[in-house]
Amino acid sequence: MHNLDTDNIRIDRQRLLDRIAALAEVGAIEGGGVCRLALSEQDKAGRDLVTTWMRDLGLHISVDQVGNVVGVRPDQTGQTDAPAILTGSHIDTVGTGGRYDGTLGVLAGLEVMACLNDASVETPCPIAVGFFSNEEGVRFQPDMMGSMVHQGHLPLDGMLESIDRDGVSFKSELNRIGYAGNVPVNTVRPRAFVELHVEQGPVLEQESISIGAVEGVQGLSWREYVFTGVSNHAGTTPMALRHDAGYAAGALAVFARDLAQQMGGDQVATAGTILLVPNLVNVIAKQSIVTIDARNTDNDLLIEAETKLDTFAQEVADREGLTLTIKSLARYDPTPFDPAVVDLVVSCAEAFGLSVRRMPSGAGHDAQAFAPNCPTGMIFVPSVGGISHNVAEFTDDTDIESGTNILLHTLLRLAETAAD
Amino acid sequence: MHNLDTDNIRIDRQRLLDRIAALAEVGAIEGGGVCRLALSEQDKAGRDLVTTWMRDLGLHISVDQVGNVVGVRPDQTGQTDAPAILTGSHIDTVGTGGRYDGTLGVLAGLEVMACLNDASVETPCPIAVGFFSNEEGVRFQPDMMGSMVHQGHLPLDGMLESIDRDGVSFKSELNRIGYAGNVPVNTVRPRAFVELHVEQGPVLEQESISIGAVEGVQGLSWREYVFTGVSNHAGTTPMALRHDAGYAAGALAVFARDLAQQMGGDQVATAGTILLVPNLVNVIAKQSIVTIDARNTDNDLLIEAETKLDTFAQEVADREGLTLTIKSLARYDPTPFDPAVVDLVVSCAEAFGLSVRRMPSGAGHDAQAFAPNCPTGMIFVPSVGGISHNVAEFTDDTDIESGTNILLHTLLRLAETAAD
Repeated sequence: MHNLDTDNIRIDRQRLLDRIAALAEVGAIEGGGVCRLALSEQDKAGRDLVTTWMRDLGLHISVDQVGNVVGVRPDQTGQTDAPAILTGSHIDTVGTGGRYDGTLGVLAGLEVMACLNDASVETPCPIAVGFFSNEEGVRFQPDMMGSMVHQGHLPLDGMLESIDRDGVSFKSELNRIGYAGNVPVNTVRPRAFVELHVEQGPVLEQESISIGAVEGVQGLSWREYVFTGVSNHAGTTPMALRHDAGYAAGALAVFARDLAQQMGGDQVATAGTILLVPNLVNVIAKQSIVTIDARNTDNDLLIEAETKLDTFAQEVADREGLTLTIKSLARYDPTPFDPAVVDLVVSCAEAFGLSVRRMPSGAGHDAQAFAPNCPTGMIFVPSVGGISHNVAEFTDDTDIESGTNILLHTLLRLAETAAD
Repeated sequence: MHNLDTDNIRIDRQRLLDRIAALAEVGAIEGGGVCRLALSEQDKAGRDLVTTWMRDLGLHISVDQVGNVVGVRPDQTGQTDAPAILTGSHIDTVGTGGRYDGTLGVLAGLEVMACLNDASVETPCPIAVGFFSNEEGVRFQPDMMGSMVHQGHLPLDGMLESIDRDGVSFKSELNRIGYAGNVPVNTVRPRAFVELHVEQGPVLEQESISIGAVEGVQGLSWREYVFTGVSNHAGTTPMALRHDAGYAAGALAVFARDLAQQMGGDQVATAGTILLVPNLVNVIAKQSIVTIDARNTDNDLLIEAETKLDTFAQEVADREGLTLTIKSLARYDPTPFDPAVVDLVVSCAEAFGLSVRRMPSGAGHDAQAFAPNCPTGMIFVPSVGGISHNVAEFTDDTDIESGTNILLHTLLRLAETAAD
């Protein structure tokens, strides 16, 4: 069945922008940003507001044991317990976050529900929107906690015992803010999952493209390199007799950049931290600690990058007479999204006459948790200047409108296939 | 006049080593090192001990207004007020210093006096040994304070007002430890100045050479480079769209190393400090601060190095889309020593059958203060492993003995020329 009646439905831009503005008031900080750390008072207030909106839209709300909140719009028979076409994201933020990261995906989902209600659209399966606990992982680790527990990749009990810097547990905070739900996780089973999110990178804006059809989340490798040499006087030690850990740090930072550019594709590599010991102007560093963040959508290429980084670091260490230790700080394989969902996002965008490109996500998202278990995809809209995790985060209203329309029609088409 | 009688005089190795061991007990710290910060209780105790030894040797002692202590051995007519052949160094140390840095030059000077006394040598002009206040510059800045005031390069009044981290003034501490002397600085006028010091670098040991005839102190340039770019997500920002201050820091560190090696000679360059902001694994650094310590005995070459460093830094900044500010933190021209004194050190070493090489000093020394005003030179002895400003600082007893014999005969020959 292809419901011709739904093709002309459009979201209500102002209603969506009003909700975004209203939620941005909750935990508002200077510069137009937001601070809603997971399970804080501000997070509770944000949850209360979004849950009220869900209720006003007539959604069937469930709060699960890890605090995920999902609102289900019943199928054409009035049932809410069949596997649903699920959308959503998160409303927790980093300490100095923007108003779009996560929030857009949740509020766009609510806008989709409002549109379907307005047009009295009936769907062969339920459509649902959720917000998942602690995506940012700033206060409690790991990140993407709610969605990962929801999809069975992390254990519920262990996560509830996670504690913040003040020694307060996730469980006690969830109870305190009234979001320790009584339904099991994954009570709302996903038939498919699609998440709308701001890009958090500069690609779409740079290329003047409205919609990103996300093909998957890049694999991630964080590696720490510790070079240990000999501290010595910067004036009295001839160049040929040095064991300079600071030089090795610099060389590795430069190599990481050169390697990523030479590999091309979507390979990225970043030396984000460098520490020298003793870090004095006139002393050759006896130790340096460098971290490299390397990402690629192709796991074989990511392994190649890791191998080349390690090999180069060892060569520099040998040449300079340093010892080297290498530690993996984090490693995630790439998460591919469902090609059919990616194609669907592209065709919806094309049907709207919007420019669209296939692209990877360099950042992690709740959608990663769903990808192994059901057809999953993501829609990106441009981030001005590529700025993210910053009060200056901004996405143009027109792009928000476009992205939400694409979300609406992608979800509708996925729902329609349930009748096939 | 060349006094043939003095040619066979040799210093008393054990007497010298005993004094070094005794002074190392004053302010001794774990690992065999010493902590005698300028004008501390430990410095006072060290001063008291050395002054007692000076008195026991019959030297005419003067303490000047900045706390320099000089002991004069009268000339053959019993006078002490004619310009003297002066030797000496300092007995203050860094926080975790060794037992040779500075101390060797002072105690070797005392040993020379003891030898001359034992052999009843008479000299046509006075010979004197001193220790100069606050050479290290750790507690009070600048370094080489006592010798620089002594030779008129720094103002007495300004230096007395120098305060340490606790807000205590140099003047009040000098009074407290009883070394605020009443004689004007430079009361003991130098006819020539020669300082024996440990190399604080690895060259002599690496080349198995006993004596360094120091040709001068390298010019020094400390420059701070601040690159400012844009902080961004390490996963979502393509390589071509980055403004990565961390990369620029690494590139400058590597360039400094390559430049020094390419320039050769005694050019050295060191990136001793690197700071990234925000210094997070998954964030492209928005700012980096790198310092380069560059030194050369040839001022034109040092200027060339500074220019090339600045040019490269600006090129990287332009290519990466960063702003760059450059600040000079310190700049000293090279200090050449007197070629005749350098020749004299070489010929004395050769007369003793010792291996000797001409070399620059990469570190600053009290002798720098004297070089513009009188014939000046320095004698280096090997530092094992090139280690300095460290409790593990060590110089072999045989090298100490050799260096002190060269000091003795260099001073004697300089004194003999006073009769010409």
